[in-house]
Formats: sequence, C-alpha cells, structure tokens
Amino acid sequence: MLDQSTICAISTSPGIGAIAVIRLSGEKAINITNQVFKSPAENKKLIDQKANTLHFGQLVSKKEIIDEVIVALFKAPNSFTGENIVEISCHGSVFIQQKILELLVENGARMARPGEFTQRAFMNGKMDLSQAEAVADVIASSNAASHRLALNQMRGGFSKEIKNLRDQLLHFTAMIELELDFSEEDVEFADRSALKNLTEQIELLLGKLKDSFQLGNAIKNGIPVAIVGETNVGKSTLLNVLLNEDKAIVSEIHGTTRDVIEDVINIQGTAFRFFDTAGIRKTTETIESLGIERSYSKLEQAQIVLLVLDLANPVELMLSRLEKIKNRINNQELIIVGNKADIGGNEKIKELTSEIVLNDKEDLVFISAKAKYNIESLIQLLKEKSHIDEIASQDVIVTNARHYEILKNAHEAIERVSKGLDEGITGDFLAQDIRECLHYLGEITGEINTEEVLGHIFKFFCIGK
Amino acid sequence: MLDQSTICAISTSPGIGAIAVIRLSGEKAINITNQVFKSPAENKKLIDQKANTLHFGQLVSKKEIIDEVIVALFKAPNSFTGENIVEISCHGSVFIQQKILELLVENGARMARPGEFTQRAFMNGKMDLSQAEAVADVIASSNAASHRLALNQMRGGFSKEIKNLRDQLLHFTAMIELELDFSEEDVEFADRSALKNLTEQIELLLGKLKDSFQLGNAIKNGIPVAIVGETNVGKSTLLNVLLNEDKAIVSEIHGTTRDVIEDVINIQGTAFRFFDTAGIRKTTETIESLGIERSYSKLEQAQIVLLVLDLANPVELMLSRLEKIKNRINNQELIIVGNKADIGGNEKIKELTSEIVLNDKEDLVFISAKAKYNIESLIQLLKEKSHIDEIASQDVIVTNARHYEILKNAHEAIERVSKGLDEGITGDFLAQDIRECLHYLGEITGEINTEEVLGHIFKFFCIGK
Repeated sequence: MLDQSTICAISTSPGIGAIAVIRLSGEKAINITNQVFKSPAENKKLIDQKANTLHFGQLVSKKEIIDEVIVALFKAPNSFTGENIVEISCHGSVFIQQKILELLVENGARMARPGEFTQRAFMNGKMDLSQAEAVADVIASSNAASHRLALNQMRGGFSKEIKNLRDQLLHFTAMIELELDFSEEDVEFADRSALKNLTEQIELLLGKLKDSFQLGNAIKNGIPVAIVGETNVGKSTLLNVLLNEDKAIVSEIHGTTRDVIEDVINIQGTAFRFFDTAGIRKTTETIESLGIERSYSKLEQAQIVLLVLDLANPVELMLSRLEKIKNRINNQELIIVGNKADIGGNEKIKELTSEIVLNDKEDLVFISAKAKYNIESLIQLLKEKSHIDEIASQDVIVTNARHYEILKNAHEAIERVSKGLDEGITGDFLAQDIRECLHYLGEITGEINTEEVLGHIFKFFCIGK
Repeated sequence: MLDQSTICAISTSPGIGAIAVIRLSGEKAINITNQVFKSPAENKKLIDQKANTLHFGQLVSKKEIIDEVIVALFKAPNSFTGENIVEISCHGSVFIQQKILELLVENGARMARPGEFTQRAFMNGKMDLSQAEAVADVIASSNAASHRLALNQMRGGFSKEIKNLRDQLLHFTAMIELELDFSEEDVEFADRSALKNLTEQIELLLGKLKDSFQLGNAIKNGIPVAIVGETNVGKSTLLNVLLNEDKAIVSEIHGTTRDVIEDVINIQGTAFRFFDTAGIRKTTETIESLGIERSYSKLEQAQIVLLVLDLANPVELMLSRLEKIKNRINNQELIIVGNKADIGGNEKIKELTSEIVLNDKEDLVFISAKAKYNIESLIQLLKEKSHIDEIASQDVIVTNARHYEILKNAHEAIERVSKGLDEGITGDFLAQDIRECLHYLGEITGEINTEEVLGHIFKFFCIGK
C-alpha cells in the first residue's frame, strides 16, 4: 500500500522570498540530492554525511550551476516522515525553485501530492490519523485559540482521549465475546450493571466530545456573531473600530449568499466572525425594504447576537426593535449595544437601563463607535460570551468535521448498547453495537482506514507538507 | 559602524506554506534561541551543540508551546553573514510565524531591516558589494538568462574583472606618484607610451562593460521588441501564440504611458518584452487616427522591431508600410512578419520575397498566427536577433544601473587620462584622473562606500535576506 518512490515539493509559501525550501522524502532522497550536489570541499559526498547535519554547496545541472544552497539531511527513521528526508534551502526566486524541482525529478524523484509528506508520516507510524489531520489545522490556524487547539491535537491530545475510550470498550467487548463462546452455558462474564455503568460513562464522554464540535468549529472559523440593527445606527463604524483593535490578521469572507457579508476579526487572540444578516453594508436598501424575515434569516447561525441601537432614536422605537429581536433568537447570547452614547444623552441611557430587564444571557452596554468610547467593555462582553476561557480549560475539543461525523455515529452506537442493556438483549447484539462503536473510533485515529478516506483527508493539505 | 545586535526575520515567502523559515543572525543568535527552545532529550541545550547541525524541539513561551520546530545552527565565521546564524523551520501558518518573531524579539533579537543579512555578509567580508547586490538579482530573476547573469555576478564574476582593472590602474598610479616625488629631477618612471597603451586597454574594457549594460538590462527586464502594424493584421493573435510557448512565468506590465502595453514573455529561457507602440490592442482607434508620429514614438526603445503585415492586403500597401517603418528605425533589428500565410496565398509570398531586399539586420518570415504555422521560425529569428548566445559567451555583463553609472564616470576619467597623455599634461593631473577612476571602481566592489550608498542599495532587498 505504501508507495516507495522518493517525493519532492516546494515546502515554503509559493512566491518570491529571501529563501525557499524544497523537501525530498524517500529511500533515495539523499542519493538523488547527492547526484546534483557539489561541495566546495573536494571529495565530500552527501551520502557519506551524518544525519541531522547541514551542508553548503552548489546544485549543478549538466555542469551549469543552478544555485548555491544549504542542504539539511535527516535519516530514517528519525525524521518527520520516518523516511530519509533532504531539505534544500535555495535562493527564493520562483525560477530557481522550479529549476531545482525539475532537476530532482530528472534525477528520479517525483512531485509529491498534497499532504503526501504527512500521509507518509502516518503510514510509517510517526503519528496517528487525527494527529496528521491536525498538522493541516496547525498550518491553517490564524488565531491563538485555534492554534492552541490544533497544536494540542497534533501533539496527540485528542488521540489519547479516543484511545482511552477504545481501550475501555475493548475490555467490554472481550467480556461479552467470551460469554458468546460459552453461550450454551448461559454464563455472564460481563457484569451487566458494571457494563451499564461503563456504557453510560462512555456515552457521556462521546456526547461531550461531539458537543464540543460546535465550539471547536467556532474557534477554528471564528465565533459567529450576528450584528443586527437599522441602517445608520453605526454598525459599519463599530466593525471598523473592532477591526482596528486587531493587530494581526484580517480577512473578509464573502458568504455563500450574496446578502451576507462576513468579517473575521481577531480580538485579543480569539477570532470572531461578524456577519451582517441583512448585508446592508453593501446595498443601499434598508432593512424595511428587504423585509424583516429576510434580514434576520441568518440569526440562528450566530452564537452571539449584537443588537446595535441608535441612542438618537426615541426610546420606544429602540424598545420595539429589541422586542422584535428577542422574539427571533432562541438560545443565543444577546448584547444590546446603545451606540452614539456621546450624543444620545444620559437621560435615554437611564431610561433604557431601567426599562430593559436582562436575563442571564443578555447584556446591555453603552458605547460610541465614532468616539471610540467604552469599546473595551463591549470587547470584554464579547470575550465572556464567547466562552473561550471555559473552552480553553476543557481537555479536548473536536474541531474536525470528519471526527464530528464519526463521533456522532459512535455515540449512536453506544446509545444502542445502553438501550440494549436496559432491554436485556442478548450478548451477540450487544457485541455488534460495541464493535460498530470500536470501528468508528478506529477511523478517527486511523487504526481503521481505507484509501478512499486517506485520499479525502490529504487532498486538502498544501503540497509540500 | 557595524551594528552588533542580533537580528531576526521571516526569510521565506510571506503567507501560508507547509513550512516557514525564521532566521536569526548575530552574536547572540544561538543564546536567544536556546532560551525559548526545549528539546525532547533531557538537558540537551542548543548552546552546547556543534555548528551545521539540526535539532528537533519545541519553541516555548511562558510554558505555552508555540510550535514544534527544527533548528539549524551555523557558527561564525562559517555562515552566510559571517555571524552566528540560527534558522528555525516552523509550521507555515502566518500566526505561528508572527508568534515566533514576537518571542525572539521579547528575548533580545530585533527585527531585521530589508537586506540586512546580506549587508552583514558584506560588512563581515563574506562578499563584496557587487556580489551582495547580485543576491537581490538572483532572487528577482525570472528567466534562465537573467538568472545565469545574476548567479555569475553573485559568485564574483563581475568583481574579478573590476579588481583586475583596479590592479592595473594601481600599478599605473604608483609609477606616476613616484615621478611626483622626484618631480624636481624630471624623471619618467612611467613610460608614457606603455602608459598610453595600458590606458587604451582599460578604456576599451570599461567601454565594453559600460556598453554591456544595455544588453544586461535587456536580459534582466526582457529584450525590448516593438510590435508594429495596422489593426487587424493579427498582432494580438501572434502575442497570444507566443504566450502559449511560455511554460513558465508570464506577467503584464503597464507602461508609464497609457498607450503602451507591455507583455513579458519567456521564450525558451529568454525574456522578451513586447510592446505595442500604438497601444491599439486597448483602444478601437486605428494607427491612422492616432497619427503616425505618435504610434511609432516608442520605436527607439526597441532592440528588435517586429512588423506584422497582413498577407490579405495588396502587396503595394504592404511595401508602403514597410517603407514607412524602415524610415523610422535606426539601428534596430527588423523582422518582417507576413501573417495569415495560410490564406494570403503563395503568389503574394513569392512577390514579397522578390520585392523586398534585406540587409543584414533584416529578416522576412511568413507565418500564420491563427493556424500556428511556422511560429518556430519566428522564434528562431527572435532568439538570433536577441544576441543572447553572444551575450552568454561574454565574460561579464553589467546589469545593475548603479554599476552602469559608475562605469560611465570611470570611463570618462580614463578618457581624460588618455587625452592628457596625448597632450603631454603633467603627472599630477594624470594622477588625479587615475585616482578618480580608482575611486569609482572601488565604489562598485564596496572598497569605497558610504552609509548613504549602502542604505540605498539594501533598502530594495526583501526582508529576511
């Protein structure tokens, strides 16, 4: 199943840089590089060099010097892939990078497929599948919270949890299957009440893991925040002010529907994905003309709803807006933002504060986006309602959609076991459901894998990893 | 003069990649990295490790793991900069790259300025100034010809030539100055006819180098080819066909004037910069309406003029176009392209061939851009007229505008020496001009440099080199 060829790829970001790194992996990685490498030291050959060493020299193609490079040698099995690895640091011109790849291919390497280095690391037992998947997440993560999750998973945090569950289940199934061997004797090796106990524990844990996906996904892609309110209440200004808080990466994602615009903003290490449900920042239409139904149709996707009110408006109008929104939201956190506090006047602030009765999922804050007044309080509320600190304290968070799907299946299987125990079904039926659960969990770590699954996982990697 | 601080920068292309490399240089490069590096092997410290070795471990900030990395150690003076260098290979997320930079800066490194690594290599005597300048050219080169020139210069080809000249001049000036010491005795240590001989040699060589700049510049930025002809003769189709020959990098450069459009096309390793003098590909105006003066106003910038004729037109009309163009060009190579050869008919091809008398700078070729007929012949002509092979066989080509300016000055100074010798001026005047020439040549290699010159040179580098 494991392809024995030596693969090569540009591993650094495409484009021009001071340097670029081209990576080879495979049995012949060092031999192939050796064929095209010329050291200034006479008679020095790469194949004679120790592992984990660096060598300066030239890459030469038919006597023409392609570049002056530094070559790094890693030897099997002590490398990322578990195979021989050569990393060539060259000058970062696109031309040189292409030339070197051509040279390596001419000399017996082949171009790597996306993620093929990591796939080989998995195949050679250097990491399990969930760790390999996390490598891509580590590279893609753009904020502190998602980075921490991905790195933890890459280092095996998630795998440990799954392996634990699997071990318990294996014990379980062994006992049941022992019973089946002695089925004519009607013995019970597996104490049913102890089993029931264990099943419930596993059910709880799988459920917790499964449920963590929503939060994990939010961390990975940004906590979804719906920003709602009339035109001209200052939503754009507010978003711009929050954007300025962001000293790191900013990106704009265009939603799948044309009328939802998303801004991912990192606020103090956590990504928030703000979306304007009515998309009124892009059109000149008002919420009214779009219809209240449509404008709030994306609300259910939000974890936090940010209602922006214009304190210049009459209090009754603001209260009616709030009422409408409250009728629309289900379980979400709500932050009521009184904007233009600098011109709205203290009277209205007092009146609103006394009129609005807040439940434990609601908060009221007065700011001025334009004057940048009290923005810190709003950010504080956003961070609290993101539950990012609770999440960070949790051991394991599921961030991967594939894992979520599998956990859902595993959870269903273990629920059937639990129900079966209650109904006193026979051991062979129990064993079947347990084995199904075991199978699913094995799919996460890669103990059970198919080429199709692997192909699907690694095709989303970048080339060179 | 040399800043002793330890500098750091991301050296690979900005953006997300499988891996990224962060580079430190300076006395404390290894110490700083050691402070934040944790090896899985207990008690293993980076500061105890040998030069040119690789080490796997974690970068840790206040007990939090930032990433798992490979650290490469180089020790002074055997490194690119001549200082201690550490190269950290990390996962290529933008977030991680930023985090690691922050961590290094917190621990005593400072962000490098553009080109500062190479500047340090120059300051520490690892390369002369013209070699250092060539590093940027190597990184920027996007075709085989310019790459070869830049790499040759980086490896010292140009410097050798300049050093040679300087040595000869130094001998020269020593003799003259010896005369000045004995001026009252009216001796001639420097044989004037031998000096005249040497001066002429140097004059010739400097002139050759100076003149090579036009070609060098053409190789670096593409051989300038003016493509002229009426609308609808097939110029766009021809450019597209040539573009398809290009398997590598294609870019479109918008000229400084709105009516000149440039396409840089790599043809078999050489860049050609095609420009349509009338810009008629962008407008619907004809050459006639723009006025013949304006349409051909850029012709003098071309090394090669490509006149495209439509064989569907009457022969007289084509001959008159050719006549007009011939009156416009001075010294350039001319390729007369009879297009639409597939529909133009053999009669016209015969007639044109017999009517047109070609001099040694002119060629006639019949093609069909649409049918892709005989394009190879046209490419062959372009390559011949680019003189790229002659250039490649030449030892040294000047590609750098700063060098060109200096060579021009040096050439003028040596011309004054030659003239002075003819006119029998006194030794002290001769010596002054020779010293001026020496000074200029020293500016190329950096033996004579000012902070201003250095600042100007390195500010165009990318950060991390």
